[in-house]
Amino acid sequence: MHILIIGGGGVVGQKLAHSLAKRCELRGQAISKITLADIADPAMVDAPFEVACVACDISQPDSVEAILGADIDVIYHLAAIVSAHAEEDFDAGLSINLMGTLNLLRGVSKLQTKPVVVFTSSIAVYGGEVPDPILDHTFLNPQTSYGAQKAMGELLINDFSRKGYIDGRSFRLPTISVRPGKPNRAASSFMSSILREPLNGQEAICPVSDDFPHYYLSLRKCVENLILGAEIDASDLGLNRCMMMPGKMWTIRQMIDAMTAVAGPGPAKLIRFEEQAAIQEIVKGWRYDLRPEKSLKLGLSADESFRDNIRYYLEDDKPVV
Amino acid sequence: MHILIIGGGGVVGQKLAHSLAKRCELRGQAISKITLADIADPAMVDAPFEVACVACDISQPDSVEAILGADIDVIYHLAAIVSAHAEEDFDAGLSINLMGTLNLLRGVSKLQTKPVVVFTSSIAVYGGEVPDPILDHTFLNPQTSYGAQKAMGELLINDFSRKGYIDGRSFRLPTISVRPGKPNRAASSFMSSILREPLNGQEAICPVSDDFPHYYLSLRKCVENLILGAEIDASDLGLNRCMMMPGKMWTIRQMIDAMTAVAGPGPAKLIRFEEQAAIQEIVKGWRYDLRPEKSLKLGLSADESFRDNIRYYLEDDKPVV
Repeated sequence: MHILIIGGGGVVGQKLAHSLAKRCELRGQAISKITLADIADPAMVDAPFEVACVACDISQPDSVEAILGADIDVIYHLAAIVSAHAEEDFDAGLSINLMGTLNLLRGVSKLQTKPVVVFTSSIAVYGGEVPDPILDHTFLNPQTSYGAQKAMGELLINDFSRKGYIDGRSFRLPTISVRPGKPNRAASSFMSSILREPLNGQEAICPVSDDFPHYYLSLRKCVENLILGAEIDASDLGLNRCMMMPGKMWTIRQMIDAMTAVAGPGPAKLIRFEEQAAIQEIVKGWRYDLRPEKSLKLGLSADESFRDNIRYYLEDDKPVV
Repeated sequence: MHILIIGGGGVVGQKLAHSLAKRCELRGQAISKITLADIADPAMVDAPFEVACVACDISQPDSVEAILGADIDVIYHLAAIVSAHAEEDFDAGLSINLMGTLNLLRGVSKLQTKPVVVFTSSIAVYGGEVPDPILDHTFLNPQTSYGAQKAMGELLINDFSRKGYIDGRSFRLPTISVRPGKPNRAASSFMSSILREPLNGQEAICPVSDDFPHYYLSLRKCVENLILGAEIDASDLGLNRCMMMPGKMWTIRQMIDAMTAVAGPGPAKLIRFEEQAAIQEIVKGWRYDLRPEKSLKLGLSADESFRDNIRYYLEDDKPVV
């Protein structure tokens, strides 16, 4: 079992690799190798099997074909230009999110094999006048380029699967919180920063009011779901291989209260509320009343409470000073 | 008012050009020029204003940029590799239907203007386990490459519009019947052939049984709707510029009965039923219970009865022997 993780240098890719290194098997087979690919060489991950780290620019067909081979059984395609970044740099979003996905799938279609491809879409595919709640058969009406490009990626995953080139499956990730590491260029970046920085003893700015509701999942659960997602039997996916990944709706206030319940009253005092128009403009159209029936039925799951999200961050990710 | 019709050599493009040549105005402005573009030089159309016919391969960015200019006010993007063709030649479908649309929109985004772009999508975007009826906010779950590529085109039309590069609108065309001309490589081609050939005194084969239901529109109504579609005020389109074009559901039997009511009992005797697995495989997943509320509200309309579809063919299109 050789697993290729594209976007293997990112927060989700690294955590997934660490989790697979502990697990040592996927889809009932022992893992013999993981290849981590990213735009720059990803950080090495210790494992009891071979791990290769390679640089790859998926916007270039040659670059992506160079890392593909008939020995690859499972591909995780996690690489993306995130939301605010794709709004600022429209061409970069098209090149990586749309063309990168197309280049990858076209490259795979030239192999004589049919690898499992797990693609991370996003709940940013939802928006517009579409009525709540969001159900499995709700129209995708993205209001960002990132969301539009993810929705196109889903259509490619479905069509390349239908044609028999891949065994694809795609999961619309909720916003990950508490996401470890540094802030990134996602408009949702603050939804982790306002907890992570205070938990690390630093100040943070919240650009929206505390009744802002959104749909979240912990990184630990996300990785568990991505592993389960690769293991779903193709015959259980039906005629649409793309679905919501389960999450839960919380307001900023509920998240802060959960942090206080787990870590005491100190961290919450480090949050300053300062409304920011550019961020609000992007996030105001995001949807949070989601009912992921299909993925729940297939065994994926959400966090029990946001206190779990806080605890997982403290247990798994908080930097040791 | 300079109008560019990409796919201007096709059945819809030619009829649209003829109709605009009679009308002489669009969006309240006198038409000064129509440019017809297609993979081969399109047939000339007589008009009381300039008509240019140019060859253009939209799969090539340079080729499409060569026909774009800041003087273009309205672009009709009708060019496509049709359904059965895109199933047989996967690369051609991606090159023309996906990349062609992307090349066009990227080319337009380099102009300093914001032309109206009317894109013809298809009801082939619907399919899979999605429950009937198909409503304005129903999930697009295409089960053909053609449908998948049209759905991606819609996402591009919405996103390039949201970014301010175009004033886009897209209409999911019902199957056009009675479509004039020769059979094409659409899986739906027989849905016109079984009427057109008998009306022209020739035999025809029907590859499905006579209770097969589908969703239809006449070519005359389709062109009327495309003209109205260009005239809709952008502010009335909301946050999703892509919608069903109205049509009506008829069975093969109802269509044949309508032909008999208009043209007498002779033509129906020229139809031979011979079920064909390859065609049935494609069309069995197509959807016909569609409720195009949004486009009806915006003034678009369907045919009153299928007898009208037959009459329009006889009045507008039947070859003079």
